[in-house]
Amino acid sequence: MPDAADARVRDSFAKQTIMATLGARISSVKAGEVEIVLPFSDKILQQHGFIHAGAVSTIADSACGYAALSVMPADAAVLTTEFKIHLLSPAKGERLRAVGRVVRAGKKLVITIGEVFAEEGGVSKQVALITASMMVVETKTGLKD
Amino acid sequence: MPDAADARVRDSFAKQTIMATLGARISSVKAGEVEIVLPFSDKILQQHGFIHAGAVSTIADSACGYAALSVMPADAAVLTTEFKIHLLSPAKGERLRAVGRVVRAGKKLVITIGEVFAEEGGVSKQVALITASMMVVETKTGLKD
Amino acid sequence: MPDAADARVRDSFAKQTIMATLGARISSVKAGEVEIVLPFSDKILQQHGFIHAGAVSTIADSACGYAALSVMPADAAVLTTEFKIHLLSPAKGERLRAVGRVVRAGKKLVITIGEVFAEEGGVSKQVALITASMMVVETKTGLKD
Amino acid sequence: MPDAADARVRDSFAKQTIMATLGARISSVKAGEVEIVLPFSDKILQQHGFIHAGAVSTIADSACGYAALSVMPADAAVLTTEFKIHLLSPAKGERLRAVGRVVRAGKKLVITIGEVFAEEGGVSKQVALITASMMVVETKTGLKD
Repeated sequence: MPDAADARVRDSFAKQTIMATLGARISSVKAGEVEIVLPFSDKILQQHGFIHAGAVSTIADSACGYAALSVMPADAAVLTTEFKIHLLSPAKGERLRAVGRVVRAGKKLVITIGEVFAEEGGVSKQVALITASMMVVETKTGLKD
Repeated sequence: MPDAADARVRDSFAKQTIMATLGARISSVKAGEVEIVLPFSDKILQQHGFIHAGAVSTIADSACGYAALSVMPADAAVLTTEFKIHLLSPAKGERLRAVGRVVRAGKKLVITIGEVFAEEGGVSKQVALITASMMVVETKTGLKD
Repeated sequence: MPDAADARVRDSFAKQTIMATLGARISSVKAGEVEIVLPFSDKILQQHGFIHAGAVSTIADSACGYAALSVMPADAAVLTTEFKIHLLSPAKGERLRAVGRVVRAGKKLVITIGEVFAEEGGVSKQVALITASMMVVETKTGLKD
Repeated sequence: MPDAADARVRDSFAKQTIMATLGARISSVKAGEVEIVLPFSDKILQQHGFIHAGAVSTIADSACGYAALSVMPADAAVLTTEFKIHLLSPAKGERLRAVGRVVRAGKKLVITIGEVFAEEGGVSKQVALITASMMVVETKTGLKD
């Protein structure tokens, strides 16, 4: 992947203020595959003390969205049109790691799949599975990346 | 709905630390229907300045989850097993309002549907549509509400 | 709805050979809402004697697809890009009735929702809930309706 | 996998009358993974001459359902509670092949993923991606397998 594409994804991610709010950071960018890490913290929990499904979804959605953006034309922007997520096990541990990958890159839609893992003491366990449709938005709309 | 059920949902919601982090509050609890409000803020955005799909999903998921909990046995806890969300329009405006409702209450699963509206200057526009499966978890698991 | 649009949907439906194979027929066409009926028969069942989720999905998907087509430009074709269906109760009775409706009509995608009811002795019970993304396909692709 | 489990899946599949109606047959059964084949035929099409999304869904759903059944207790029955399917490319060719696999086997739900491939002249192309929730149903309900 050219450095330009890597920079494009990281620059766009840096504009997602919710990532700083939750404490997430981007950890890897390849063509068609992006990884985001979210450390456990007391401010992102649901009622039983697990990480909230919404926080899990936030990093899973962005990992998929940026995997899609990494294969889109340079003048396109990405918007999620829909996603479905399975919460397979309670999200707990030291941190979550979300990996999004492109399944099919069309002209209008890029279809993606992603997995979220909970990591604790060097052990990794899958806690979520996401599939998402990402729209290729023309920059004439005023949107970018 | 007895006051006990209303208190049960509000007490559980108060334990969801992600809600305070995002700025969301519960605005209405009825049997089988719960409403959550999320004011616009600079800390929950995606790269184009809209509210992030993950924040939209967080309140939509919790509205559905608490709608489900409101019809569950007193000794059960609720966990999201999966949800799908359509992002219909960019989430912008003064605030979002998520309404979750029970479609079918089974012994093991409660199926729910929800809508998220963006509100601006007294005008309300639907920006998301969610369907979710909520598991009825026995308290022998150690989980509650 | 102009008669042209009604004829467009019914003509396209008549080309779906799977409908004759399953025994389904179109029962109502309005702008943005289409209804399909599937009588119970011994040839569309799953292992417990209920109508197979695939048959339920087939009529639900087509009801949504044609609801979408009914609001698309005259020179566009419709293709399902994804759908999710909840099977709420076993599909049994004299017949199923699927109703698809447009939730949002965009230039590239039309988002739809649908319900499937099992009817028996004059009583109607919801057995499925679907949400679907329908793509607006240009006729330059060679596809029509 | 013991022969008993293989026979269990094949016997149940044989009771799904919709499979004979569509022309589908089960081609492989392993613990946690089942494969179904559907030859192209003129009776399962949509309006453009592709295999209908409903037929694609039928074999994808059953492949996932039987993958789930293959890991369930001997006295349990399987019911689909929901699935989501992405139609990635038009379903055309000599035949479709659906492969369903278990992602997580819980006591109440078994979560599965599946892929559908179109095969033509020895070339295989993925045309669909499904994720599905399968319920573990106790036989006290009167249902079996």
